[in-house]
Amino acid sequence: MDDQTHAEPPGYIQNKDDQLKRLRRIEGQVRGLQRMVEEEKYCIDILTQVSAATRALESVALSLLDDHLRHCMVHFAQDAQHSHEDKVAEASAAIARLVRS
Amino acid sequence: MDDQTHAEPPGYIQNKDDQLKRLRRIEGQVRGLQRMVEEEKYCIDILTQVSAATRALESVALSLLDDHLRHCMVHFAQDAQHSHEDKVAEASAAIARLVRS
Amino acid sequence: MDDQTHAEPPGYIQNKDDQLKRLRRIEGQVRGLQRMVEEEKYCIDILTQVSAATRALESVALSLLDDHLRHCMVHFAQDAQHSHEDKVAEASAAIARLVRS
Amino acid sequence: MDDQTHAEPPGYIQNKDDQLKRLRRIEGQVRGLQRMVEEEKYCIDILTQVSAATRALESVALSLLDDHLRHCMVHFAQDAQHSHEDKVAEASAAIARLVRS
Repeated sequence: MDDQTHAEPPGYIQNKDDQLKRLRRIEGQVRGLQRMVEEEKYCIDILTQVSAATRALESVALSLLDDHLRHCMVHFAQDAQHSHEDKVAEASAAIARLVRS
Repeated sequence: MDDQTHAEPPGYIQNKDDQLKRLRRIEGQVRGLQRMVEEEKYCIDILTQVSAATRALESVALSLLDDHLRHCMVHFAQDAQHSHEDKVAEASAAIARLVRS
Repeated sequence: MDDQTHAEPPGYIQNKDDQLKRLRRIEGQVRGLQRMVEEEKYCIDILTQVSAATRALESVALSLLDDHLRHCMVHFAQDAQHSHEDKVAEASAAIARLVRS
Repeated sequence: MDDQTHAEPPGYIQNKDDQLKRLRRIEGQVRGLQRMVEEEKYCIDILTQVSAATRALESVALSLLDDHLRHCMVHFAQDAQHSHEDKVAEASAAIARLVRS
């Protein structure tokens, strides 16, 4: 979790505004869910909105991961003399968490 | 989505405060994600937080669904002369959306 | 796991042939995956087939669950003087396993 | 799906026996499911086994993907003068299918 060890700028920077826009929309969805529970809306309608918010979060994750892999690819090519096993292991672990959540 | 057709109080009401507390925590997680992207934190660390928020949303959904099924059970027993096929179909469709999201 | 405790016929019996047909098709998909690995097919193509088999298994699960809920509904209505909390808890736990797998 | 276009040996070859062993075990699980449906075992017990088979398939996919990324990394480093955008896009699409299935 120590981002100090990652001196290079993160790989997703080109889509930063898009990601922030999506996350603000998801924040709105979660506030909408609170309102639905507060007003005791019908359970199935709330579940539909939870599924929509979950899918939106997954889209953010898949987009971040795509940017990350793109960034790693450039980095691997520029620094061919080192092994990057740890970077691949780290990406694989993140993918496993996404698939299983 | 028309909750006017659902005159009876929703089934999840007994856990309302719990659900609101969870949803507020998820809202905080999503705002935390915005901060991480804003400050260009390391991509894999952001993905870990996205997985945590996704799992938290799933927990809200599973808890709402459990309350809903409990509520339906009581209702079916009290109103045995009607078929409740539509209620089961509706619950199954909501479960399918959760499993596939 | 003791099915002796469940004397009544299981709820999914009306779709038994459909379910068996689907499961045989999934068995074929899994054998096809073995062949692809044996013949060292391209990894991404194998992953596509794994996703297809996973989705097919989820469809079997969702269909079994729908039949089960339908069956429970009839049973609850016929036996209104008992609480069926344990049946709902059991169904909710199965749904949670599906959502999280 | 044309594996003729992928002349180089696939990246997962070192774990081939492990993958085949896992896939044979999953084939056994799917045949076990057929037997359970045939013998009308209790629905919830069948669902538990479906979840286990689904998780086993996901493990195969995550392991194949890890091998693939490792293989790509070596390849990118050896062939630094070309862009490998298409390989990353392909991997990202496969990951998205896994996350959403």
